[in-house]
Amino acid sequence: MASSPGLSLREIVDKLGGTIEGAHNIRAIENTRIKAVASLNSANKDQIAFFSDQRYRNQLAGTQAASVIMSQQSFDALNKSPCPTIVCDNPYAYYARLATMLNPTPVSSPGVHPSATSMSTVPASTHIGAGAVIGRGVTLGERVVIHPGAIVSDNVSIGNDCHLFPHSVLYAGIVLGERVIVHAGAVVGADGFGFAPDFKQGKGEWVKIPHSGRVIVGNDVEIGANTTIDRGSLEDTCIGNGVKIDNLVQIGHNCSIGEHTVIAACVGMAGSSVVGSHCQIGGAAMIAGHLEIADQVIVSPGTMIFKSIKKASRHTGIMPSDEHHNWTRNAAKLRRLDEMSKNIKQLQQEIHGTFAL
Amino acid sequence: MASSPGLSLREIVDKLGGTIEGAHNIRAIENTRIKAVASLNSANKDQIAFFSDQRYRNQLAGTQAASVIMSQQSFDALNKSPCPTIVCDNPYAYYARLATMLNPTPVSSPGVHPSATSMSTVPASTHIGAGAVIGRGVTLGERVVIHPGAIVSDNVSIGNDCHLFPHSVLYAGIVLGERVIVHAGAVVGADGFGFAPDFKQGKGEWVKIPHSGRVIVGNDVEIGANTTIDRGSLEDTCIGNGVKIDNLVQIGHNCSIGEHTVIAACVGMAGSSVVGSHCQIGGAAMIAGHLEIADQVIVSPGTMIFKSIKKASRHTGIMPSDEHHNWTRNAAKLRRLDEMSKNIKQLQQEIHGTFAL
Amino acid sequence: MASSPGLSLREIVDKLGGTIEGAHNIRAIENTRIKAVASLNSANKDQIAFFSDQRYRNQLAGTQAASVIMSQQSFDALNKSPCPTIVCDNPYAYYARLATMLNPTPVSSPGVHPSATSMSTVPASTHIGAGAVIGRGVTLGERVVIHPGAIVSDNVSIGNDCHLFPHSVLYAGIVLGERVIVHAGAVVGADGFGFAPDFKQGKGEWVKIPHSGRVIVGNDVEIGANTTIDRGSLEDTCIGNGVKIDNLVQIGHNCSIGEHTVIAACVGMAGSSVVGSHCQIGGAAMIAGHLEIADQVIVSPGTMIFKSIKKASRHTGIMPSDEHHNWTRNAAKLRRLDEMSKNIKQLQQEIHGTFAL
Repeated sequence: MASSPGLSLREIVDKLGGTIEGAHNIRAIENTRIKAVASLNSANKDQIAFFSDQRYRNQLAGTQAASVIMSQQSFDALNKSPCPTIVCDNPYAYYARLATMLNPTPVSSPGVHPSATSMSTVPASTHIGAGAVIGRGVTLGERVVIHPGAIVSDNVSIGNDCHLFPHSVLYAGIVLGERVIVHAGAVVGADGFGFAPDFKQGKGEWVKIPHSGRVIVGNDVEIGANTTIDRGSLEDTCIGNGVKIDNLVQIGHNCSIGEHTVIAACVGMAGSSVVGSHCQIGGAAMIAGHLEIADQVIVSPGTMIFKSIKKASRHTGIMPSDEHHNWTRNAAKLRRLDEMSKNIKQLQQEIHGTFAL
Repeated sequence: MASSPGLSLREIVDKLGGTIEGAHNIRAIENTRIKAVASLNSANKDQIAFFSDQRYRNQLAGTQAASVIMSQQSFDALNKSPCPTIVCDNPYAYYARLATMLNPTPVSSPGVHPSATSMSTVPASTHIGAGAVIGRGVTLGERVVIHPGAIVSDNVSIGNDCHLFPHSVLYAGIVLGERVIVHAGAVVGADGFGFAPDFKQGKGEWVKIPHSGRVIVGNDVEIGANTTIDRGSLEDTCIGNGVKIDNLVQIGHNCSIGEHTVIAACVGMAGSSVVGSHCQIGGAAMIAGHLEIADQVIVSPGTMIFKSIKKASRHTGIMPSDEHHNWTRNAAKLRRLDEMSKNIKQLQQEIHGTFAL
Repeated sequence: MASSPGLSLREIVDKLGGTIEGAHNIRAIENTRIKAVASLNSANKDQIAFFSDQRYRNQLAGTQAASVIMSQQSFDALNKSPCPTIVCDNPYAYYARLATMLNPTPVSSPGVHPSATSMSTVPASTHIGAGAVIGRGVTLGERVVIHPGAIVSDNVSIGNDCHLFPHSVLYAGIVLGERVIVHAGAVVGADGFGFAPDFKQGKGEWVKIPHSGRVIVGNDVEIGANTTIDRGSLEDTCIGNGVKIDNLVQIGHNCSIGEHTVIAACVGMAGSSVVGSHCQIGGAAMIAGHLEIADQVIVSPGTMIFKSIKKASRHTGIMPSDEHHNWTRNAAKLRRLDEMSKNIKQLQQEIHGTFAL
């Protein structure tokens, strides 16, 4: 992609804070222009990199970057700065904000594509792409961008500055806050998986539970591609402010996710579970239904949670992998663990009995 | 959502069975009007709740509901009914049916949206939403509802009263029974994952196996959002009557799922496996290829099944989670289980040898 | 589906190699006409089957097929061929190629459907189905088939003979090689899951990392239904030539997959991992971020990989399943493995101490 015209180091610290360091004559370097972010290894003289991990000291020493972002602590530990340096509190967040300034989201000019269908009145600032569909009774905030093929069903409410990527689907009655990003193919508000068994003598059926709840999504939420968030049955499914959800995640009916919790790809949450704020749910983790997970809980990738977690803590349940023939030998013993445990106890009795004599 | 005008208790039992209990003067209460279902906790005087779990006795005692649904056994165990009560055999199924009566699916009036494309002749009772596409040679039953953006490829056959939600995709030749619900983004009939390796001396390719089979879906099946069901290679993939499939499930080519089996979210089934009827497959369970699973088998969530299961039974293979530092200590030993087992045997020999002397 | 007019055995071996065997008078049988492929069990006199596994010898003996494909070794092991036989090096690959010849992909005639939107100039050989959307600056090779509802965003480049199935989505700037198949609902190029934490005293936010990299897809790649492949943050996500990816797979930002690697359904790969060529990743396996996996590595289904794998090998980490009550007993001991190990050591000390006396 084309690089931006760039910003001087002075313009950058004026906007994002931090100080320019690493040269006797700061004035001489503060006009250095930055056109893009890059890694320490690949950066050239138009680019800025960031340094936050001591393992990359050699890359820092050899970088061709115009400038590097780092913490005061990192800067103090250097004998000599390899290039003009921006010193700040949180180099990674600084880098992210600077990268956003240098890579602004392409502006989608307001207007409704002739092939789109809108059955509601939308603000003049709305962008609706080709083939998108807006149902009846839809309320949109300002500057909403609806990409081609996105579907907004009846009675949906969307706040300012939301982006719906192609083929995302909002079922009827869903509520999005402001600055929500819904990636392609995500489905928000399908019926939850609820059926009452009604079988007798081998006959009968699963009776569908109607889902009249909604999904309420807060501000600054990001929902990944092909992720699914089910509507509530009686009450609403709730996604708190600042929650970030990766691709191919399943959130069951009536779940509630606290503010600023992050959920990595391929996670599944069964229905009616409550996850606290500032949690981190690792990729492919699974959370059973009707649990309560406290604030600031970390669930490791691939871990299945079957009990509520009452306090901030990290939980793991990964089956370690091994070369196949090693695994085969050990896995066979997994089915005999209880027996092994009993054998140990018996040996203890026998030996300690011997000693007791 | 707007509540329905409601039904009297008399109208309810006339339609769904059961008896009205809990007052000396039944006539006086059978005109009590119910507008919606709700939980014991949240129900108000227009609403009905259900009670089926003794853990919620306190909630029952304090409920403000107009009426409660429960079994004869639960009713007999009460000292006093907190409100007029409907007594029936299966309160949960009763509740589900009543909720459906009170929350009828919004009627989609027949007609084809001008932005939809249909290359086949469809019954006058069909609803086709904006941007939906119907291919050539498609056969539709009565009252089929095709929501915006759904794609029905050539030669598909769909029975009466099916609902295809936005952006669901049926590949060519797929067959749906009656009253099938396909949620948004579900894909039925993509090619299975079949390739023949043809490599020699580091050169060559995976040769694609063509998939000329279909997917045959029975009556009353529900397919969740973004779920994928592959077509068969030579024979058909078959989904039995009454099967309910949650979101983000993968069903491989040539699989067969028996009647009234339920499959929770994030399950994967590899190709050519046969699952019996009335099975329950827990969320994120995985079933390997070419297996046979008997009727009425329960597979716990997160469990991987690698061998056929010959009789009705429950199977589990969950790696228990723990606080991370506990897990770390125990997981390290998992790779030494075989060694531990040998050590135990050696100790047994040594001790029993000692005793034998 | 309608069978093809068919090919004679002579026409088949002329095109695909191999020899016709199994009769004294080969001339008499080489005109045998084959209309379709089938299994040994179900094949009739117009059909050809293949035989590559000695477990199916009885099926071979009883087959009604017009002809069977097998290796020289299998043929030599037979007393008598049950029917005219094609002998070749790799019967399964031969079968796949023959099946493709007999089931040619339906030709999609060139042309742009009136309901499609194209903002770029496309070759006359392009097929664009109903409701599909082609953005600005898109470059297409010859004979590209874009099925109904597929979305090709701005500045995408697509090579010759690619097929995009309904509702597949390519984000801006994605590059596809030649003969790439993208199945329905697959999303290529959504933003990776990258956020910098910026919290202090319980306030703050996750700062989004912009993703300016692309996804570069090689030739002959197949991408399954509802699979997601994220774009790179700074560098590109790369999918090598001949890679086959099944349904509901997640490939994180900046990953690189080597040539001819196959990835089964429900796999998740976190960001920045590098997988070698000719690897086989089993269904529902998970690969953590920032790893390197060598060439020709096999990862078993359901296995989580958390360390780099340096050489061709097979890795497994499956928690074995069992009947539920057995599992319950053994799983309880999993949380006490470390204690069990210590008990064994203590017993060893006690006994060997005894012996030493």
